[in-house]
Amino acid sequence: MAHGAGGKATQTLIEAVFLDAFRNPLLEPLEDGAVFAAGGTRLAFTTDSYVVSPLFFPGGDIGDLAVNGTVNDLAVCGARPLYLSAGFVLEEGFPVEDLRRISASMARAAAAAEVSIVTGDTKVVQRGKADGCYVTTAGVGLLERDAPLGVAHARPGDAVLVSGPIGEHGVTIMLARGELDIEADVTSDTAPLNGLVTALLAAVGGKVRCLRDATRGGVATILNEIARASGVAVVVEEDAVPVRPAVRGACELLGIDPLYVACEGRMVVVVAGDGDGDGDGDGDGDAEGGVADAALAALRSHPLGEGAAIVGRVQDDPPGLVLLKTAFGGTRIVDVLVGDPLPRIC
Amino acid sequence: MAHGAGGKATQTLIEAVFLDAFRNPLLEPLEDGAVFAAGGTRLAFTTDSYVVSPLFFPGGDIGDLAVNGTVNDLAVCGARPLYLSAGFVLEEGFPVEDLRRISASMARAAAAAEVSIVTGDTKVVQRGKADGCYVTTAGVGLLERDAPLGVAHARPGDAVLVSGPIGEHGVTIMLARGELDIEADVTSDTAPLNGLVTALLAAVGGKVRCLRDATRGGVATILNEIARASGVAVVVEEDAVPVRPAVRGACELLGIDPLYVACEGRMVVVVAGDGDGDGDGDGDGDAEGGVADAALAALRSHPLGEGAAIVGRVQDDPPGLVLLKTAFGGTRIVDVLVGDPLPRIC
Repeated sequence: MAHGAGGKATQTLIEAVFLDAFRNPLLEPLEDGAVFAAGGTRLAFTTDSYVVSPLFFPGGDIGDLAVNGTVNDLAVCGARPLYLSAGFVLEEGFPVEDLRRISASMARAAAAAEVSIVTGDTKVVQRGKADGCYVTTAGVGLLERDAPLGVAHARPGDAVLVSGPIGEHGVTIMLARGELDIEADVTSDTAPLNGLVTALLAAVGGKVRCLRDATRGGVATILNEIARASGVAVVVEEDAVPVRPAVRGACELLGIDPLYVACEGRMVVVVAGDGDGDGDGDGDGDAEGGVADAALAALRSHPLGEGAAIVGRVQDDPPGLVLLKTAFGGTRIVDVLVGDPLPRIC
Repeated sequence: MAHGAGGKATQTLIEAVFLDAFRNPLLEPLEDGAVFAAGGTRLAFTTDSYVVSPLFFPGGDIGDLAVNGTVNDLAVCGARPLYLSAGFVLEEGFPVEDLRRISASMARAAAAAEVSIVTGDTKVVQRGKADGCYVTTAGVGLLERDAPLGVAHARPGDAVLVSGPIGEHGVTIMLARGELDIEADVTSDTAPLNGLVTALLAAVGGKVRCLRDATRGGVATILNEIARASGVAVVVEEDAVPVRPAVRGACELLGIDPLYVACEGRMVVVVAGDGDGDGDGDGDGDAEGGVADAALAALRSHPLGEGAAIVGRVQDDPPGLVLLKTAFGGTRIVDVLVGDPLPRIC
């Protein structure tokens, strides 16, 4: 089960098997979506399969999760999401009422994100060959800007932001399974990020290096991808990372770090510094300068970015690592996840 | 299990739930793919989920089936397939060696169809929550021609062709399951049809009304969709329908009609007549005229169309029905499939 959970096991599987088989220049960057031109139009294209358990949970269900996830993968490529496909694998006996509920949820999510679900497919398998309903969405988006975004584009001096409190989706799913004797007032953060991305790019477009929605593996996994792909260090201030008390409390009881818990409506943003190598032009090595502040203001101006925060900065050394400055004044390495306590989180 | 097998139960499910939820002008034609413009470029977009059992069978596996199926759905829209996505749902414990074999098969199929697999996703579920491996592919293609193709475009006088012997994929899968004590030398016809479509369109492009690959539900299901969507009758000559002896023999033993058995590398082609209402300009009511003959020659000139045949014609009456002129001189209605003896055929 560690394969597919977003950490090292998955990376190894994907790299060993799929990259080897499908090797091509578009696939290799391992971004959330592929970017290409067709007939002179620049497009982004992405897919995700959803196997979340339970199918319905506080704040959402597999339907809006599948729509928002694909919308977000397009948005963080810098693309305007346009059209989605949906492929369903249903277990024999799956209640039509549940399918109707999931479809209605997908339709609402599509309308909210201003995309259309234009093509689909349904397969039914025998009892015991699925778990109610799996959904695979793919999406096509229009790339309207030239500056490429990507995990390989972070530079020393850049600032790192998150768009809101982290870990809410993952904790919601864990609690919704009912296997833990914990109650907490948490709902999934599943949401379409394209509007938030548009607001951000309108404010500081040319200065945005990288956007990634922090899904499987959480913020820690995204930061590690950035550190490795860009050959930089990412230094995070633990105190600066927004985590709601209910999520923090549940994570403490479960013995897990919210940095590794999946979000479905939050993104990591890396923006350029101001030119003095740290981001604010004052030479003090902090990244809270003009661009970062403008990015923060743009995020906070949008309902889905109200809880945004500047959480860290990019520096030269040690390349490839994510460092956490703890609330107690220490520093520890935030490693890539090995295995995942949270399978089927999305 | 009748839902998802391509017949009436599926239609009812899809129409009741998905069309109701996702209603939009692009989805409603219920073609194999959606067609739209993005940034001034006309594109086709499609998806299919694959749950075939067994995963490996004579002539192919779930991997090339998933690539060819999506390539074909784009090709029959008249689009040039360009880019594919692949989403995997793997059952815990699925052998990496099998995944490698499937990936290699997908890569070969993509190369043969001149498409690239550019983005993907993998999820792993617990044992007993899948059946080894499910694959959902989506694809984007470029529409380079203006004339629309579709099941609603057939007109009285048109000719109906199939691109080769039918039913081979479905019979292969049934026999490969090993539940029947029948042996036959049959292999799946899984193949990419885009080259064949290009050859056909080059020869008689402006005269092609409709292309559909005859997958779930077989040729009979496609002909019924054409008859209903176009408000015409489709009359098929039983003797003219190409069926290999091994397929015919297996179907007889199984008590099923090859017209309903899935193909994965065959298409139904409707081409315009010559202007006298029947297709050949000689007023005799037969559709074997100039355009049909040219289409047949174009299909037969391609390795995947060697076994092509003109199998019937379109007429006014009775609208919405498919009639089969049997080898014994009778006529019977070829109805839409209710239920399907062949679940998980793709």
